[in-house]
Parts: sequence; structure tokens; C-alpha cells
Amino acid sequence: MRRGANRAVYEIDEILAILDAGLIAHAGVVTPDGPLVLPMAYGRDADNLYLHGALANQLLGSGDGTEVCVTVTLVDGLVVARGVFHNSMNYRSVVIRGRARQVEGDAERLRVLKLITDHVVDQWDTSRAPNPTELKRTLVIAVPLAEASAKVRAGDPVDEPDDLGGPWWAGTVPITTTFEAPVAADDLADGRPMPAAVAAIEGRSPDSRR
Amino acid sequence: MRRGANRAVYEIDEILAILDAGLIAHAGVVTPDGPLVLPMAYGRDADNLYLHGALANQLLGSGDGTEVCVTVTLVDGLVVARGVFHNSMNYRSVVIRGRARQVEGDAERLRVLKLITDHVVDQWDTSRAPNPTELKRTLVIAVPLAEASAKVRAGDPVDEPDDLGGPWWAGTVPITTTFEAPVAADDLADGRPMPAAVAAIEGRSPDSRR
Repeated sequence: MRRGANRAVYEIDEILAILDAGLIAHAGVVTPDGPLVLPMAYGRDADNLYLHGALANQLLGSGDGTEVCVTVTLVDGLVVARGVFHNSMNYRSVVIRGRARQVEGDAERLRVLKLITDHVVDQWDTSRAPNPTELKRTLVIAVPLAEASAKVRAGDPVDEPDDLGGPWWAGTVPITTTFEAPVAADDLADGRPMPAAVAAIEGRSPDSRR
Repeated sequence: MRRGANRAVYEIDEILAILDAGLIAHAGVVTPDGPLVLPMAYGRDADNLYLHGALANQLLGSGDGTEVCVTVTLVDGLVVARGVFHNSMNYRSVVIRGRARQVEGDAERLRVLKLITDHVVDQWDTSRAPNPTELKRTLVIAVPLAEASAKVRAGDPVDEPDDLGGPWWAGTVPITTTFEAPVAADDLADGRPMPAAVAAIEGRSPDSRR
């Protein structure tokens, strides 16, 4: 996606709103074999974006102080221009660059794991909390939002003035994302009702999920 | 997203199918300021994934031979487990690591730009092709698919055996993506009909867009 026309840089409220609308992040680190970018779940509070993973996770296992880039993107539509050079997409994205910090202490780790667990839909209070072994096996890292920036493209294509009278069509194709009806697991025993927060997400979009 | 249970590694046909279903890639490079991950449009043929951008693009401008990682992810659903440790998402992702090569020669560059332009919906043949100035300003790079790998998670949560009789709900929440009705640009002159390929995408999903 090109950056320039119709893109603006936004402040912290817009950054937080994009992070709240996103489902996954793409986290990048530098490894001896070059850059590595992997999709990950995330959560956030006012100051940090949080990631978690098994200790073996190649991405996070490189330790405290690792330089990371975490990018969250929502694709809102196709932008069909008269000239292919001006084709684009409408999107919202946040890029966070910084050094990862391992989150320590059981109470703080549990607070952060709840943020990550409840990022898309509130599940923590209706699920089994991590036991000590699971907690020990889970690496939790924070990336400060201080270095976050947002870019948003919205609206019509911006074509060359000379092309506006040409024979070509121009416009946008909105793209929507929808949570469908939850489906019980095949091995779910009788008498375990769907939590209200899970049931409530049906028919919603990432932007309207709360 | 955790990797392990229910994830498998797939071969080239599966990799190409995921790339064909994806809308954007997250491309990562190493910069003097650490890793940088940005969302980008892409295209592919049997041997390479292709990216393009203005020559000034920070990501691609670092030249031939740059180590890159290009990741394409489709999120298919939430996985709500009995224990939060086993929460996950259903997803399909491709990770391509390799060295970028600048695509050279006008004929080859035009062939590749058509692949990128037509990746989501066929637009090239109904739009104005790049003029020499635009073509000169556009950097086109190839990343070989030789180093691509795919991971897919699908299906129910995998909980601890001891939790299967517990009081918690478990299941999945499918997530769908839909192309909505195309909208003509505000400045579109009369008598410019919507191309058939653009009209045909309405109501389709990324997986069924051809």
C-alpha cells in the first residue's frame, strides 16, 4: 500500500482505537537468519502492547531488550483507481517499534494475560485460569506504545487530473469482517452454556465487538 | 497464536492457495533502527512473491539482496478453550524468508505489476497502464518462494484431558470477510460503467473471489 496522499498520522487515541479494533499483530524481530515476522495475539493497556507465547517461541525467546516491531493492520477496502499506479487499499495500521521487556511477577503476568485473553472477546472470567505450570511456561512481553505511530487511508482513489475525464471506472470496494455464530466443540459435555460475552459477539465486526 | 497442536506444515500447493486467499502481506526488514514491519500489497507467480512501492519506500529502498521476511495471514476464527492457556485462533499463514531481488526490464516489470494489480481483483485490463514516469518511480521486488512455509490451525480447542469434564464452555467463533458492493468515486464522470470483474466481487470472500 502506498503512503502519501490521503494518509495521515494520528495521535494516541487513534492508535489505541486501531489496536482495539485489530485481531492479530504481526511481530518482527531480527534473527541470525534475517528478519522474522509472525502473526500473534496481543493485548494492550494505556502504556504497552503485550504479546505472549511459549518459552520456546523463536520470536520472543531472544530475551529482554530485544528490538521488535509490532504492526497491526485492518483492511477496510480496495481502492480502484483509473490508473493502476494509483490503486491502493483503504486501511488502518499501527506500527510500534521498541525494545521488548519481559513482564515479571505472577500478579502482573496474570493481569497482562487477562488483557491478551480478553482482547477480542471477554473470556478470562468464564474460563479456567492458568495453573502454576502453565503460567511458568508462558513468556509475556511488553512493548512500549511510546514509539507507536498510526497511518490511515480512507476514501476515494486520487487519480491524475488528466485521467479524470478518461474512460476508466474508479471507486472503492468496502471489505467487512464478521464474527459468525459460535460453534460448540465436538467434545463439549452437556450443560455447559455458552458464556454471554461469547454469544454476544455473533454478527458483530471487529470495530463493534464491545 | 501458539504453534503446536493442530498445526501442520504444508507443501507448495497449500502455500500458493493461502497466498491467493490473502489480501495483504506484512513485510519485515532490518533497519539501523531495528526491525520494521509494514503492510503491503503483493502478487505472486509460481516462483516468487512480488512487492512494489515508491522508490523512497523505506522498506524496499535498501536495495538488491536485502534480507526480508514476508508473512501473509488469514484469520479464520477464535478458538475458545476451557483453559485460557489453550485459547488460540484458527488461521492460515505463510512465512517467506529470503533475499529481495529487484525486478528489472520494462516488460518483466509490467508483467509483475499486473500480477500485483490483479491479485485481489482483475483491474489491469480495464485501467490505465503505468506511463513511463510512473513505471520509473515504481520499485518492484521479488522474493523467492523457495523458502516459504505454511502453518494452518483449524478446528476445536485442544484442552487438558482433566478439563474436559469441567464447567467451562469450549468452541470456536468463525470469522468471515466479505467484499461489499463497490462504490463509484464521487468524481466519477457519467458513462463509465463498473468493470465486470469489479462488479463480480460483491458478496464474495477472499477465498472465493475468483
